[in-house]
Amino acid sequence: MTTSFYPPQRTLMGPGPSDVNPRVSQAMARPTIGHLDPMFVAMMDEMKELLQQAFQTGNQLTIPVSAPGSAGMETCFVNLVEPGDTVIVCQNGVFGGRMKENVERCGGTAVMVQDEWGRAVDANKLEDALQAHPEAKVVAFVQAETSTGASSDVKTLVELAHRYDCLTIVDAVTSLGGTELRVDAWGVDAIYSGTQKCLSCVPGLSPVSFNDRAIAAIKGRKSPVQSWFLDLNLVMGYWGQGAKRAYHHTAPVNTLYALHESLVILHNEGLENSWARHRLHHNALKAGLEAMGLTFVVPEAERLPQLNAVTIPDGVDDAAVRGALLNDYNLEIGAGLGPMAGKVWRIGLMGYAARKDNVLKCLAALDEVLGRINAPVNNGVAVSAALAAYK
Amino acid sequence: MTTSFYPPQRTLMGPGPSDVNPRVSQAMARPTIGHLDPMFVAMMDEMKELLQQAFQTGNQLTIPVSAPGSAGMETCFVNLVEPGDTVIVCQNGVFGGRMKENVERCGGTAVMVQDEWGRAVDANKLEDALQAHPEAKVVAFVQAETSTGASSDVKTLVELAHRYDCLTIVDAVTSLGGTELRVDAWGVDAIYSGTQKCLSCVPGLSPVSFNDRAIAAIKGRKSPVQSWFLDLNLVMGYWGQGAKRAYHHTAPVNTLYALHESLVILHNEGLENSWARHRLHHNALKAGLEAMGLTFVVPEAERLPQLNAVTIPDGVDDAAVRGALLNDYNLEIGAGLGPMAGKVWRIGLMGYAARKDNVLKCLAALDEVLGRINAPVNNGVAVSAALAAYK
Repeated sequence: MTTSFYPPQRTLMGPGPSDVNPRVSQAMARPTIGHLDPMFVAMMDEMKELLQQAFQTGNQLTIPVSAPGSAGMETCFVNLVEPGDTVIVCQNGVFGGRMKENVERCGGTAVMVQDEWGRAVDANKLEDALQAHPEAKVVAFVQAETSTGASSDVKTLVELAHRYDCLTIVDAVTSLGGTELRVDAWGVDAIYSGTQKCLSCVPGLSPVSFNDRAIAAIKGRKSPVQSWFLDLNLVMGYWGQGAKRAYHHTAPVNTLYALHESLVILHNEGLENSWARHRLHHNALKAGLEAMGLTFVVPEAERLPQLNAVTIPDGVDDAAVRGALLNDYNLEIGAGLGPMAGKVWRIGLMGYAARKDNVLKCLAALDEVLGRINAPVNNGVAVSAALAAYK
Repeated sequence: MTTSFYPPQRTLMGPGPSDVNPRVSQAMARPTIGHLDPMFVAMMDEMKELLQQAFQTGNQLTIPVSAPGSAGMETCFVNLVEPGDTVIVCQNGVFGGRMKENVERCGGTAVMVQDEWGRAVDANKLEDALQAHPEAKVVAFVQAETSTGASSDVKTLVELAHRYDCLTIVDAVTSLGGTELRVDAWGVDAIYSGTQKCLSCVPGLSPVSFNDRAIAAIKGRKSPVQSWFLDLNLVMGYWGQGAKRAYHHTAPVNTLYALHESLVILHNEGLENSWARHRLHHNALKAGLEAMGLTFVVPEAERLPQLNAVTIPDGVDDAAVRGALLNDYNLEIGAGLGPMAGKVWRIGLMGYAARKDNVLKCLAALDEVLGRINAPVNNGVAVSAALAAYK
């Protein structure tokens, strides 16, 4: 009760948090300074530029919200949705459902466009909804569905929304840093992400970015933003340009050190190199999993490299396998979420976790554990298939 | 641009963040594990007990909100205030004004009871307001006004509110761990705090506690909570009892390690010993400041030990003094906030910063800097007056 907590050293290959780069942990432990200290303000300016690079945007309003990804989602909705607004939400997994909750709590009406879980968002269905709802003001969807591993085509969906004069809100929690994302080139109006996925940072912050069109919508609101904490009119006063910062809330100083370090690492690796690295290790993991006979939930063309959802073979005890991986190997893989609970495993290859040693460790461990409980898969072939894929 | 950020080692004697105990920084750098990991869940259970001790409560719903103190404030208001509700807000500084903003953004009506900035909340004025507004549902006030250093009498104000059948929301951001606070004995219904003040933890979390009466009010709401992220009905599913936790958002794992460590430190010191330590060092700081001729903003009987607001002598350049302290001594003291900007300094003695060496460093540095710019105070006497007060 009265002693320090020493966590075990896990390998984090679930849906996030992912393995944190040791440089990030060290950065976070550096001395706390004031949130209005000139040295801190200079770091904030650097952070904004690094975030702009990661998002591939020139948007001035590109900042980390001082709370986890769910608060980043809420930041987008409470600032852009007013009572009475219609928002088209494309749902193909758990997080589209959370968007619906957000719309309704803002007093808006959510028009749901349902896609099969495990598939990308269908642009044709979105167009039908846009035609049926000319009153719609916003289209919202998830680029990288963490609950299934499906990747949706942001560029096409945003173009379509703009053709019907809608703003777009994009969930990039699991995509940022791990898979192609170009906010400006694709015209995304508002986007949010998280730090604990492909950025290899600790959880607790939510990078967001808003373009001029989104800012104009916020400034033109008829009603005040319902959240004081997430009101961008106020947050901009602290994260604005120049040396003069207005106190809004106390920034999570040390977690921001961590994010800064993770963005420096990403910058030095190169964004496209990071995307390619995620793809490389995904291909090897996929070769190993398929050699064992495991099948992916998502069709290949719509599959995210960083979140690999595979179907649990019939008769296999989900919890027993994950428990053995955790207790015997200190390896965390993810359970299924919502209606997929007990039916799939989600194997993350995010950020620092997207490494060859992790791929081989995961395959060897899964192979041994499934063999031990006599699951109907091909044992002993996964690692060599992955190694062959690396050649 | 592409290099790591190395902050200077400051001494933090402003209004917070305060000096972080090095044990806390080390705890935060420990390996990240999953937010549903059984080891993490066990740590969460310990954390709840430690928070209950710090708040002096048996309230089951005693948890850290995954965002800074402003979000803790918003958690209290969005869960307890519904559209059309009347809330009496006692304002004696900046943070009462922020409470008003919260009430209004929840669709409530704020009845403001104004007290002089730098004074405690006046129970008589509150009673007048309670009599004039029998429709009031909630009374909200700040125990420890960080903008002025005034301490209000929680026990008396809560008793009064209950006599008129109101719930109470208390801001304990700057008081928790530093000055007497007894949630159960005083009957507080809902309370929020921050980690970056007298707990000596990094900023980024907001401990909150709700009693059964407050929970009944939340469960009996007619309208949904407007924030998804801060909806306690959902948050309780993750922070609830037992091994089964429902995923709500990804907890800020490493910052929670930090808070756990700071609560272990507080527990081992003893809560009342911590209160006494803040008082001890306050008395020495006060002796030194008064020997120089500086005067306190708040009358002695209403003064917080951990936040010392003193009037800037006529003709002294506020920014030049704080700049010299920061640049020459790596010492941060706080500027005035709102209408007190440029008129007062706020010297914090919070948590790990409430130490003899900090008191003497601050007095010696302030003495030298004020002497250097030829301010109208008695130089050369502050440190010896403080040392005499320690005897």
